[in-house]
Amino acid sequence: MKWLETTEADFSTRLATLLADRGAVETGVSTPVSEIIADIRRRGDDALCAYTARFDRLTLAPDTIRIGEDEIAQAADRVEGDLLEALSLAAQRIESFHRAQLPRDMSYTDEAGLTLGMRWTPLDAVGLYVPGGKAAYPSSVLMNALPARVAGVGRIAMCVPCPDGVLNPLVLAAARLSGVTEIYRVGGAQAVAALAYGTASIAPVDRIVGPGNAYVAEAKRQVFGHVGIDSIAGPSEVVIVADDRNDPRFVALDLLAQAEHDELAQAVLITDSAAFARQVVAAVENELRTLPRAAIAGRSWADHGAVVIVRNWQEAAQIANDFASEHLEIMLDAPEDFAAQIRHAGALFLGRYCPEAVGDYVGGPNHVLPTSRTARFASGLSVFDFLKRSTSIAAGPDALRAVGPAGARLARAEGLDAHASSLTARLDALGAAQD
Amino acid sequence: MKWLETTEADFSTRLATLLADRGAVETGVSTPVSEIIADIRRRGDDALCAYTARFDRLTLAPDTIRIGEDEIAQAADRVEGDLLEALSLAAQRIESFHRAQLPRDMSYTDEAGLTLGMRWTPLDAVGLYVPGGKAAYPSSVLMNALPARVAGVGRIAMCVPCPDGVLNPLVLAAARLSGVTEIYRVGGAQAVAALAYGTASIAPVDRIVGPGNAYVAEAKRQVFGHVGIDSIAGPSEVVIVADDRNDPRFVALDLLAQAEHDELAQAVLITDSAAFARQVVAAVENELRTLPRAAIAGRSWADHGAVVIVRNWQEAAQIANDFASEHLEIMLDAPEDFAAQIRHAGALFLGRYCPEAVGDYVGGPNHVLPTSRTARFASGLSVFDFLKRSTSIAAGPDALRAVGPAGARLARAEGLDAHASSLTARLDALGAAQD
Repeated sequence: MKWLETTEADFSTRLATLLADRGAVETGVSTPVSEIIADIRRRGDDALCAYTARFDRLTLAPDTIRIGEDEIAQAADRVEGDLLEALSLAAQRIESFHRAQLPRDMSYTDEAGLTLGMRWTPLDAVGLYVPGGKAAYPSSVLMNALPARVAGVGRIAMCVPCPDGVLNPLVLAAARLSGVTEIYRVGGAQAVAALAYGTASIAPVDRIVGPGNAYVAEAKRQVFGHVGIDSIAGPSEVVIVADDRNDPRFVALDLLAQAEHDELAQAVLITDSAAFARQVVAAVENELRTLPRAAIAGRSWADHGAVVIVRNWQEAAQIANDFASEHLEIMLDAPEDFAAQIRHAGALFLGRYCPEAVGDYVGGPNHVLPTSRTARFASGLSVFDFLKRSTSIAAGPDALRAVGPAGARLARAEGLDAHASSLTARLDALGAAQD
Repeated sequence: MKWLETTEADFSTRLATLLADRGAVETGVSTPVSEIIADIRRRGDDALCAYTARFDRLTLAPDTIRIGEDEIAQAADRVEGDLLEALSLAAQRIESFHRAQLPRDMSYTDEAGLTLGMRWTPLDAVGLYVPGGKAAYPSSVLMNALPARVAGVGRIAMCVPCPDGVLNPLVLAAARLSGVTEIYRVGGAQAVAALAYGTASIAPVDRIVGPGNAYVAEAKRQVFGHVGIDSIAGPSEVVIVADDRNDPRFVALDLLAQAEHDELAQAVLITDSAAFARQVVAAVENELRTLPRAAIAGRSWADHGAVVIVRNWQEAAQIANDFASEHLEIMLDAPEDFAAQIRHAGALFLGRYCPEAVGDYVGGPNHVLPTSRTARFASGLSVFDFLKRSTSIAAGPDALRAVGPAGARLARAEGLDAHASSLTARLDALGAAQD
């Protein structure tokens, strides 16, 4: 864990080093992934089954790639009642927030007589990648699938690897709750390739979302352009801005909630009190003695954790903007005033009783957020990821008379004569004056 | 030019071939581009000047990379008055439309007592790439820069290559009109690298937009993740849906306006009248005799052009959706009724007097649109490209009591104990009931 104070002479250099910590990771799996993609494009289901046998030790035939409705129902029925209730509450809250997020179409006729419009339409089909094994989080299924359903996407095709054939009941229950229309027991780059290009048993989709390992991330990168993808997620981060009126243990647990995700995760405390910071650091160390994922969380805190002592909250806001962090907790009185100074953050958590974990599950906003300082230019997953805009222009003779001559002049200046003539031929037919 | 009729037995196969026409183009410039980027990151301005000397035959020093205000003013003053007027009209209309497009922030408190919000903030800095030479279109400068300005972006840094030192007055005038804050006379992959990573004379930006050649496109692809980029544009397309009550010459000119852009451009007519289609084809051939860019347009029409004869407009709408074209002209009575059936198109042009060229210059909506069937999942450039969303959750004790226990249950099911404890420690302190 690094300890920085804004009063130090070399503060800005040390802050820059800390910020550079979040650089993109090179994977080096580009060649094997492009071979897998080419093979899926060439041999379809045969290749998909072969890779699944090899990587997941699971023998599939084209008619067992898709998980049957009865299997889904059986698995989902094994989930305990109170867990299913919690999942339902989460689903309902996520759905409500994303419904409120839906944008409106627009149309107006201007003084020149042109009717201009913008219309949002859903994608026809999306693919949802869900990692296998321990990283298979049901909450991620909700967070990825529900915005697509709310947006009006017709087909939501999910791929989840099932090593040794083992299904994850909670993941299947979450898929059922969130309107996934089809589930395939395949994973890795081969699943991404199948979703992007289609095989006999998996129809192609228009966009692929969801987290995955380095192979999955590289496969998404390679199919980008043929289909849409979400951003390639890096390790997770939290910045917590807290005064000394907080319980140090709450802050420590919030830092560790980030750190327990991944050894590369980053948890940062910004505070105006060095004494309070020392209490938080002690509380972190204390919690690490009993935390089940202490090995991961401890590594993350040691390598990437940081404490920044500031002179005032204005400095804190500036530094929080520099971090442009995925998550920003504001544990101050009147957190809204501080939030108003924040230009870059994936998601904000306001108040002393609003840990990031609220947003991970049952808050409502999406927990798929821009990592590695990309909140400078990127946003969390939302209904916007499953919609696209078409603009429209309607012009009759009068409208063309109003704007056509200027358009033709610009077209000629750009050396595009057919463009110009497509305007002037119509203006001539209308008997319009031209220059 | 291909001639298809929906009544033919092999229609769907032939349509699929035509659609596959728009596949992504492999460039093969990945290695030289990654070398240039690495060199700019290592040597900054020195490398930038060296590449500019080599590729643009222009000797620069760090203090002449940026084009001075006086040079911009002098160049812009050389633009004729009526052209400047046309450019101003275009700028004003583009600005109005994009202002109408600005989204609203959202905030509400739900029945559980959580206040949920979504706030839009502009990017701090964007880079605008403008190609040099003949492809330097002033209209593109307006279309790329104005949405950024309307979104509230503070720095808009433009790079334009100036081979042999020659400045393009119209491009500089357009930059001035549209609020570009700084202009650099560099281009190619080296300019993209400088915008992404910064040099001593060019501060880094958060997102890079604008068209360019294969090197520029590959460089954007490679810096993606470190900064945001717009979509990599492919060759342009138009689909025109027209009945036989149109003037065949108007339709022919609209097809050629697309074809004259690029030999790889695609222009498609969908109509229910084979007789009318034959008249259009004859008109295209006639116009090609005199069109200045006939070599390009003729090649495009021969290789990629198509006529599709349909039995009815419902069939036409389905095929237009299959094309998911960048531009869609609807030259029918009641074009709005037809437009209502369109799910995928970058931009729609409604009516017999609304050629695509209206939208290229003076319509208002953006002319940077998704190409190569990517309108299935992508949208045109807009203020949304220069904004990002932050979501927020504010929760006090009561709100945490309402949703915290379910959150903790899900966190434990996912094996994330610090997540669970960050909720339960607070609930305990509040004396809240837990399971």
